[in-house]
Amino acid sequence: MNEFALIRKYFAPLAEAFPGSLNLSDDAAILDIPEGSQLVITKDAISEKVHFLPGTDPALIAKKLLRTNLSDLASMGATPLCYFLAVALPKPISEDFIARFAEGLAEDQKQFSIHLAGGDTITSATPVFSLTAHGLIPKGKALRRSGAKAGDGIYVTGTLGDAALGLLDAREGKKNALTERYHLPQPRVNQGVELRNVASSCIDISDGLLQDAGHVAKASNVAMDIHLEQLPLSQEAREKIAAQPELLPLIYSGGDDYELLFTLPEDATPPFPATLIGRVGKGEGVRLLEHGKEIPVQRLGYSH
Amino acid sequence: MNEFALIRKYFAPLAEAFPGSLNLSDDAAILDIPEGSQLVITKDAISEKVHFLPGTDPALIAKKLLRTNLSDLASMGATPLCYFLAVALPKPISEDFIARFAEGLAEDQKQFSIHLAGGDTITSATPVFSLTAHGLIPKGKALRRSGAKAGDGIYVTGTLGDAALGLLDAREGKKNALTERYHLPQPRVNQGVELRNVASSCIDISDGLLQDAGHVAKASNVAMDIHLEQLPLSQEAREKIAAQPELLPLIYSGGDDYELLFTLPEDATPPFPATLIGRVGKGEGVRLLEHGKEIPVQRLGYSH
Repeated sequence: MNEFALIRKYFAPLAEAFPGSLNLSDDAAILDIPEGSQLVITKDAISEKVHFLPGTDPALIAKKLLRTNLSDLASMGATPLCYFLAVALPKPISEDFIARFAEGLAEDQKQFSIHLAGGDTITSATPVFSLTAHGLIPKGKALRRSGAKAGDGIYVTGTLGDAALGLLDAREGKKNALTERYHLPQPRVNQGVELRNVASSCIDISDGLLQDAGHVAKASNVAMDIHLEQLPLSQEAREKIAAQPELLPLIYSGGDDYELLFTLPEDATPPFPATLIGRVGKGEGVRLLEHGKEIPVQRLGYSH
Repeated sequence: MNEFALIRKYFAPLAEAFPGSLNLSDDAAILDIPEGSQLVITKDAISEKVHFLPGTDPALIAKKLLRTNLSDLASMGATPLCYFLAVALPKPISEDFIARFAEGLAEDQKQFSIHLAGGDTITSATPVFSLTAHGLIPKGKALRRSGAKAGDGIYVTGTLGDAALGLLDAREGKKNALTERYHLPQPRVNQGVELRNVASSCIDISDGLLQDAGHVAKASNVAMDIHLEQLPLSQEAREKIAAQPELLPLIYSGGDDYELLFTLPEDATPPFPATLIGRVGKGEGVRLLEHGKEIPVQRLGYSH
């Protein structure tokens, strides 16, 4: 099956509900941006052996790629609109792979109200996938890393460290709630939208809590104190760390959480369930405290 | 050098003149679209051994990637605005490669008035690069593949087949005007803009003249007659084909021309030098004629 046939059979159905895609039948897509809106755009790429293990279900690869991008849109408070996809696969391109990859995308398009609008399919010795996601935000309302102020509370959605712990289990061939968190991030799209007029800063945690908190501290020109005992852990993470205490640092230094880290003015409360993990102060840098005492951190986070 | 340092040193300078990039320091870019404009978006990817030969100057790889995308914008009549870039390189990522790649981008950004607005750098066993280019067009003015009418003249910019002939020479280690055309497409950005209110249809020739003409014929629901003796050839292509007549089909079936194929109403003339190569008729499909007689075509074009 050649490139054009693959596009018509598997990718065009993902684009048909989005008029700007021109049904993937022209040289480019055409987007109308509603008056009073800005476009928020992000691009993430993943490759085999680095971001997913060989033999991973193509539907999961597709969803993980889409969701990591959705998480970036969420961190800016944007509403998902459309995406562009580059697929690089070894020759001959497996129709089964593409079929399953497109199935994964179709499921997530429904869940997150986003549509394929264009892309490219090429051959390459190693599988590599790249996605550019577009979202909408009312003018001037995008959440930024800058904006945190001394006195603000620091919050996170969900629980931390599950994906990093899950990667360890996945490498041993296990399947459980933790490996699911590793394979399938839950981008906090709705929460991002709800934070638009509320949060003073926001970022999604993809490289580890402390490293991403460091990005906010730097962009906002503030210090951040984070309290270890306040970090939200899942039951499964708690059990795994109880059995292997040396894994504790993965909670604050592990990657792939895709939770939102945000700051709120001192007197504000989150518009949805979230955990207060610390407080913004004057100065610079991020400190991790255990019962009020700073603890040394070996490795701040995951640098790709 | 880690990912963040690479971005700051080599990629942030490519983004600094474009405010929406937020200096590549946030989770996503924020784009303002002028009232009365639409956004035209395209995405192309390239991989080593498929789209460029190993050892190719990284600056040339970067330029070719950017220019193939610019060619898609040109085919819609759009003015270049900004682009998002995914770079996948073997570990450890070579700083020299990135430095030279960014140099190539910097040169072309100046030439084509476009800016980096975001992206991702990852590791991968094989080098793969993906780019999403954004352009602006006044509302409703985008050139499309559909729109050609019986009686319209069919035109092309520049000369045909040089890149396909140049690839043969490049494989033999030669360097000449043809290999330059293969390595470095000349996207017809200005011509695309000039065609906005003039052309009835437009496409860029990337997969071979006849195949791309076929896309226009199909989208416009018309037939196209193209006259072999009218096809514009460079002096170098003429000489090469005189020496090896069996290479003639590369003129109409070879890829990588990145010239514009467009149609104009019968009484219109092109707003810039271009070659009339045939005429739109009723019916369907593309015919290649030599002195009025249809000649059989073995291979329509390049299917990736």
